[in-house]
Formats: sequence, C-alpha cells, structure tokens
Amino acid sequence: MPPVAESPAEVVAAVEAGELDESVLDDRVRAVLELVARGMHVLELDESYDEAAHHALARRAAGESAVLLKNDGGLLPLSRDAKIGVVGEFARTPRFQGAGSSQVNPTKVEVALDEIRAVFGDVPFAAGYGIDSDDGDDALREEAVRLAGEVDTVVMLLGLPGKDESEGFDRTHLELPAGQIAALQAVAAANPNVVVVLVNGSTVRLGDVTPHAAALLEAWLGGQAAGGAIADVLAGVVNPSGRLAETMPVRVQDNSSYLNFPGDSQQVVYGEGLYIGYRGYDKGDLDVAFPFGFGLSYTTFETGDLAVDVTGEAEQGTLRAQVSVTVTNTGDVAGAEVVQVYVRDVESSAHRPVRELKGFAKVTLEPGESQRVSIDLDQRAFSFWSVLLDRWVVEAGAFDIEVGRHSRDLLLSQRVEVSAPPVAAPLTELSTLHEWMADEKGRALIAKAVAEGANDPTRDPEMVAVIGTMPMKTLASFSGFSLDRAALAKAVAERTAAG
Amino acid sequence: MPPVAESPAEVVAAVEAGELDESVLDDRVRAVLELVARGMHVLELDESYDEAAHHALARRAAGESAVLLKNDGGLLPLSRDAKIGVVGEFARTPRFQGAGSSQVNPTKVEVALDEIRAVFGDVPFAAGYGIDSDDGDDALREEAVRLAGEVDTVVMLLGLPGKDESEGFDRTHLELPAGQIAALQAVAAANPNVVVVLVNGSTVRLGDVTPHAAALLEAWLGGQAAGGAIADVLAGVVNPSGRLAETMPVRVQDNSSYLNFPGDSQQVVYGEGLYIGYRGYDKGDLDVAFPFGFGLSYTTFETGDLAVDVTGEAEQGTLRAQVSVTVTNTGDVAGAEVVQVYVRDVESSAHRPVRELKGFAKVTLEPGESQRVSIDLDQRAFSFWSVLLDRWVVEAGAFDIEVGRHSRDLLLSQRVEVSAPPVAAPLTELSTLHEWMADEKGRALIAKAVAEGANDPTRDPEMVAVIGTMPMKTLASFSGFSLDRAALAKAVAERTAAG
Repeated sequence: MPPVAESPAEVVAAVEAGELDESVLDDRVRAVLELVARGMHVLELDESYDEAAHHALARRAAGESAVLLKNDGGLLPLSRDAKIGVVGEFARTPRFQGAGSSQVNPTKVEVALDEIRAVFGDVPFAAGYGIDSDDGDDALREEAVRLAGEVDTVVMLLGLPGKDESEGFDRTHLELPAGQIAALQAVAAANPNVVVVLVNGSTVRLGDVTPHAAALLEAWLGGQAAGGAIADVLAGVVNPSGRLAETMPVRVQDNSSYLNFPGDSQQVVYGEGLYIGYRGYDKGDLDVAFPFGFGLSYTTFETGDLAVDVTGEAEQGTLRAQVSVTVTNTGDVAGAEVVQVYVRDVESSAHRPVRELKGFAKVTLEPGESQRVSIDLDQRAFSFWSVLLDRWVVEAGAFDIEVGRHSRDLLLSQRVEVSAPPVAAPLTELSTLHEWMADEKGRALIAKAVAEGANDPTRDPEMVAVIGTMPMKTLASFSGFSLDRAALAKAVAERTAAG
Repeated sequence: MPPVAESPAEVVAAVEAGELDESVLDDRVRAVLELVARGMHVLELDESYDEAAHHALARRAAGESAVLLKNDGGLLPLSRDAKIGVVGEFARTPRFQGAGSSQVNPTKVEVALDEIRAVFGDVPFAAGYGIDSDDGDDALREEAVRLAGEVDTVVMLLGLPGKDESEGFDRTHLELPAGQIAALQAVAAANPNVVVVLVNGSTVRLGDVTPHAAALLEAWLGGQAAGGAIADVLAGVVNPSGRLAETMPVRVQDNSSYLNFPGDSQQVVYGEGLYIGYRGYDKGDLDVAFPFGFGLSYTTFETGDLAVDVTGEAEQGTLRAQVSVTVTNTGDVAGAEVVQVYVRDVESSAHRPVRELKGFAKVTLEPGESQRVSIDLDQRAFSFWSVLLDRWVVEAGAFDIEVGRHSRDLLLSQRVEVSAPPVAAPLTELSTLHEWMADEKGRALIAKAVAEGANDPTRDPEMVAVIGTMPMKTLASFSGFSLDRAALAKAVAERTAAG
C-alpha cells in the first residue's frame, strides 16, 4: 500500500498483462478488508474523553520522566517561599514536543513560567537569550545577570531550538546554542545558586553546563504538561525518578559511531557494530558525563541482599533467572528507585558488550520502608544472535549478574554458570586449524590424519599459533603439512558423519 | 601457481576434459617461461659479496632506524667513561628479527652487551628478568636492583619475546611482559638514571615504562647488527634520526579498530574505515603517548620559511605542489632532521582523515648549517578514492599544507585553493533532494517541475532539512510534494541529457 497515486492503475495493468495473478491480488485485498472489518466497531465508540484527566496523566508522565542529574547541597526541591527568579526564553516559549511525524495537537500547553509562578508566586523573569539565534544577545544576557543578582536562586531553562532536532536529518554536533551557554555562565557568575532545567529531545554535551549549575534537571520534551511537571519537580511535588535511557558523553568524538558518521558516497557503514550507546562507552572504557541509567532522587536508597536463582535448560529454551534484591528508602521523603539488572557474558566466542541492561523495576517507597524486588530474566538475557548459526544462542560458561543504580554503579554482582551445547559452525575444509582443534572430534580426526606424516606441525604449539588461523584447505596445499587434500576431504566427511 | 602437489594432474585433466582450452594454458606457460628466461642470467652472476660491508650497512640501517623517544636532561649520549651497568636478558640474548616468513639467516649476530662493553669497557650486567616467563623472577630482579645501586647510569633492555609477535596471528594486547615492567620499576626506584632500550616489532603501550625511564630509545628489531647499532646510539657515534612510522597510544582501547578487533563468526568488519593508525587518533582527537612521526635527536633544529608553489590542473591530472622550508641545525652536533609534510583537506564530500603524511625529506646538517629543503607533492596528495565515481578525484576547495617535526607538531601551515571539476554522481530518481538541489541544473529542473504545484516544500528551508535526505522517487510518491513520478522521470531524462 505505498501512498502513490499511480498504484491502482499499475496493479490493474499488471493483472491484465498477466504479470500478477488475480488470486494473489484477491488474497492481499481480503487481508486489507478483514483488517478494516476488525476495526469498524471504533466508529461506534464513544469518542469523548476526560480532557483534564488525560492532561493530568501527561503531567505525571512528564514529571516521572524528568532526570535529576545534579543537586549540590540538596538545592532542590526549592522551598515555596524561596526568593527565586526564572531565566530562559524556553520558560516563556515552551518547546515540549518533536517535529515531523512525532508532532501532535495538544489540548492545551502549559508554560513553565506560569506554572512556576502558580507555585512560587509572582517571581521575576528574564529571557536571557533568544531561541531563534544561537549567538546570544548582550541585552538579554545583561538583563538576566541583573535578575540573578536580585534573587536567592535562579531557575534557568536551556534547550535545543526546534530547528536543531527533527525527523529527516541528524544533528551534526551535540552542543547547546553558544548564546545560551554564554548566558548561563554570566548568570552563574552573578549567582552560584543556578538550577538548570534542560528541554531537549536528544543527548547534548554538558561539559559547559554542569560546572555552572548547582542543580541540573533534564526535563526532555515533556509534552503538553511539561511546564507543570517542571514546577512539580522544582517544588518537590514530584520526586524525580527518571533515569537516562542514553549516555551523556564527555565528547562527541567518544561516540562509537563517530568515525563513520554520517557516512558518505551514498553509503553508511555501521562500523560500531553492536557497541551502540552505553555499550560503546563501556567497551572503550571511556569516562562519560552522565552514564546510561543515571538519575538522582530527593531521597536516598540502599539496595542489598542480591540473590540469583537460575532455572531451566538453555537447550530446551527454558533458561530463566530470578534476580532479587531488597531496596530501602533511607531518606526523609517518599521516592521511587529504579533497580537495574545488567548481564555480563564473561567469555564469548563472539563480540559482546561489556554488559547489557536486561531488566529493571521501579519501586516506590515511603521513608524507612523496605521492599523485596524481583526481576525475571528469560533466556534472551543470556543469548546473542549467532551469525554463524543464524539463530539466538546461549554459550555455556560464566555470566555476571550485576545490579545497581545505573550502568556505572553496579555494586552488587553474582556470577552464575550456565550450561549449554557448544556453539560452533560445521567444520569444513574452509574452517581454520584453530576451529578444527577446538572441536574434540575434529582434533582427533586431524591427529589421526597427520599421525603418519614426517612433519606434523600441529604438535608444536608455536607453529599452531602461526598457522592456526589458516583455512584447512590452504594448509593442505603446503608441502610442510602432513595432510593433503584427499586426507582433508576424508576428515571433513567423517566429521560431518559424526554429527 | 599454487603450491599444491595435485595441481599438474588437475590441469592435465581439465585440458583433457575440455574444461580448459590448451591455448590458454600455453599462454600461461609461456609467461612463466619468459620470466624464467629473463632471470636466467643471475645464474651466471658473481655470487660473492663483501660480508663485512653488508654487515656495516645493516648496522648503519639499524642505527638510523632507532627512534629516540625521551632524553631527559640530555642523559644520552653517554660519556665513554660513564659508570654504567647493563640490565635485561635481551642485552645478552638478542631478539633482532621477526618470525615466520620475515626470518632470515644472519651472517653473524651482534650481542648488545658485547658491543656496549666494546665501547664502554667491561661494564657489569644483570639479567633482571627471563625472556621465557612473563611473570618476572624475584632473584633476577633483586640482582638488577643491586647493580643499579652501584652504577651512575643503567642501560636496560626491554622487549617482546618472540612468542608474542609473529606472522599468522595478531597480538591480543599492547603490553610488555609484566615481569619486565616490575624489573624496570624496581631498578628505577634504585637509580633514576635509567636508559630504556626497547626491542620489539610492534607498537607497545608505554604508560608503565616512560615515567620510569630518564631516556627511552625504541630500537625495534634491528637485524643482525642491532646490538652494535644500540651501542652506537648510546655512545653518540650515531645521532638518532628515526621517526615513528606508527603511533604509541595511551591505551589499546583508543585504537580505531578496537571495537571490531579481532572479528568473530568468521567475519572481520573494518569498521575503522580509512581512520587507520594516526588517522584514527587524530580523528578522535585523542591524546597519544608518542605520535606518528615522532623522534628526538641529540641536536636541535629550526624549520621555517615555508613556501608552497601549486601548479598544474587537477582536470588534466597535472596538479603539483612544491613545498619548501629552510632547516637549520641549531645544536652542537651533526644530525639529521626529517621534514614531514601533511595535507589536510579542509572540506570534503567524503570522509577524509584530519591530515595525512604526503611527503617527507631527511636532511643531514652540521652544527649551524642551514639548508633549503623541497618536497614535491603530486596530484594523489590531494586526491581521494571516490566510491561513487570509481576513480581518484580531487575536490575543489581549500587544502592546508602543514609542515613540522611530527604529526602533532606542525607549526608551519599554508592554505592553498585548488580548482577542480565538481565531484558528483549522475542524478537519478534515487538521488536525494539534497543532491538534486546541490546541482545547479538539477535545482533548476526541480524548481521548474514543482513551480505549478500548490504545495512546494522545496521553498521552505526547514522542510527541505527534514525531507532532503529522501530519494526523489520516495518524495514523488508523497501527495504533499508537487512532483509526481512522471515529472520526476522527465527531470531525470533532462538532467541526463544536459550532461
């Protein structure tokens, strides 16, 4: 069903020319009509809904999605009688959703400045920068600096203009607009109590922001109720519990796709392979600004008593692990912890990430409350896609089950041993000597085949190290190797027959 | 001519079965016989040679290839009456060549300890470590520490055992054996005047060596006269002028191939693309231990007065640049400077290294002597291989000609503008809107085709940013785009006809 005006005429012509069997067309049309029939009842449904309830849900979702990145000295939440000022054009002119096909029609749009004033009273505001210009504006910046000097705490919204991120193109850098950074640094020089609230859809480099922000809240593009959600978090009505679903890197060059981005000559090479996102930063053992899974709370948690219960059999597809920990809210306010479970394949025949998030659970706790939390892992948590075997496989051996607050804070770890059938491609004449010698039956066949030879290099480990990566077919061509092509063919046949 | 015993019989069988035309075989045999005939005269040549002269040449080559990496306080060269001691089994048991097909039969092998004693007298020796064990040996290490306490300066040879590097396999790390590092650190703690001499064939991580070495000489695997060459450099008979033809990285993880090395599942993806070696470290803007092209001397040089003379036409393949500088030996001893010329393509439609070495010259100068040095660059220095056009191309625009001592010390730079025809693949229905709009004739055709449309998104820069990466064929399927398939086909035909 491509959206092409010419399609119907092209289909009719194909049937008439005998290129398309009419019964095939009937099948496709029937599938479409059946789908239509299944959906017809929606036309009879009550289309009304509770706009206020939906908006309240949107506000809750936005509040729970915000990620608290920094909170020096517990600056947040702000007291309702705090003498605060608001800086940043984004506080008055919300950017709350993406562009292109992610764009929806809001029923109403909350403005952060209005919502902050609803909570904190008629606080002063300065734009600080314009959204349309990346370069900054001296007059706006100076006005913001004056405001910063007159209040105890500055709430400053920074973010990406809509033109910077959309479908259809990729960003070419990770920077916030230079004018916003300049405004932040000028404001922070005038008043060290700056709470930066970020409104952006994608990862940004924060190296020029974090040092100038006493508190840093990543509010993302929170939807139509984002303005209220920001006020909720600032005031402590909502205790932030969002976690980064991406890494905030130190440098764009640290990203594993950097060498290949954005491709050229009509080609894109995904040279980073499976080392995407945090998998790349972890594999490269790189410092990051804020790691995958990171997020602070207004309370504190302790997590302990890790237990891992492995059951089932990989060969039957029934391998499971139940991971349990006890989480305690050790702080003074209610809050939610996100327990994260990472699996690390200690040794693998294939490239594997250092660790991967395989399960998580969000648990809300009153102050002092403890709860036992269980997270179930299925077989896929231990599997990788084998290009050789064209299926998901589990490789026998050790796996570390790592549990903690984020991908770089995994204090709890337990090693488990998993049994599974060997993962190996069928041995052929193109398999290497290493591959033959790694296979018990293969090794025996090679030993038998070369046993009579005057010059058997497989007995010499240093020689095996040198020739081990060669295909057997190549080795069988060497006069120095006591195995000719005929003997190799026999060994391949016997190994294949042995199953 | 594969080295397979069965080949002749297989060839005969193929001819008899009619699978191989005998005339084809005749052509191939004739080519072999002609080559044999061309080489027959070597059988008549005088096979004798001056073994001593060849050995002396090998010693000179080894001396000139050694790279001085560090020389704090001018510790090197050592005075002939210096009270030195030699540590390191490699000083007594030379490793001087690679394994596998790089191995040759030496006419004689110089031992570094003997050659050092020939210059510096009967200096004491301690093995410090064994070559066969990576773990180190307490007794050997303690003996070396005692020796270190009794001399003014320690010359310590470190290196890679033969089992660590050979053809047929890749190293899995960049480390020197832990036992050698432990011995170095113990020796350096007893005597800070340690001259480390490295004997290794491939890049090693030096983070655990450099801080403990007052001087550091990379002697590589210098061949049969390497022992004498090391003594020559230590004594100042040879002033080192070798330069790194590779990078010594800070970490193995910094190498651009790290995410894909060594491949798996019978596949190796060269995900680093063209960012190989220094090209990768430069693209990633990574600190390195010792950069590509690096190497110190016992004298100092000044290089200035850069002039770049560009001639010829890229379209005719005659583009040339003559790069000239004046080099002055500003030190007290004769020495050789290696002037390195790098070319940086300031902007390119394809992925390009930050800079690439495109020429160099080695100039030997007496103290105080100056010389004008010219290095010629041909068109290839400005070219890249276009996957789109399947040929080398020069793209018009700015190129920086950077000249200096090594890839991270390029103080002289001159920008030149190069003219060349546009580099672009033929515009088709699969080309993107961006590609059509980047082409003057293509842009005019699109403008003409959409001029009548009610909804022409190409007039809206933000919309073009979103849809610009889509193939025109896809856009022509959208009802929102004022260009249907028929109009696109017409535009493609007209653009093709326009040439």
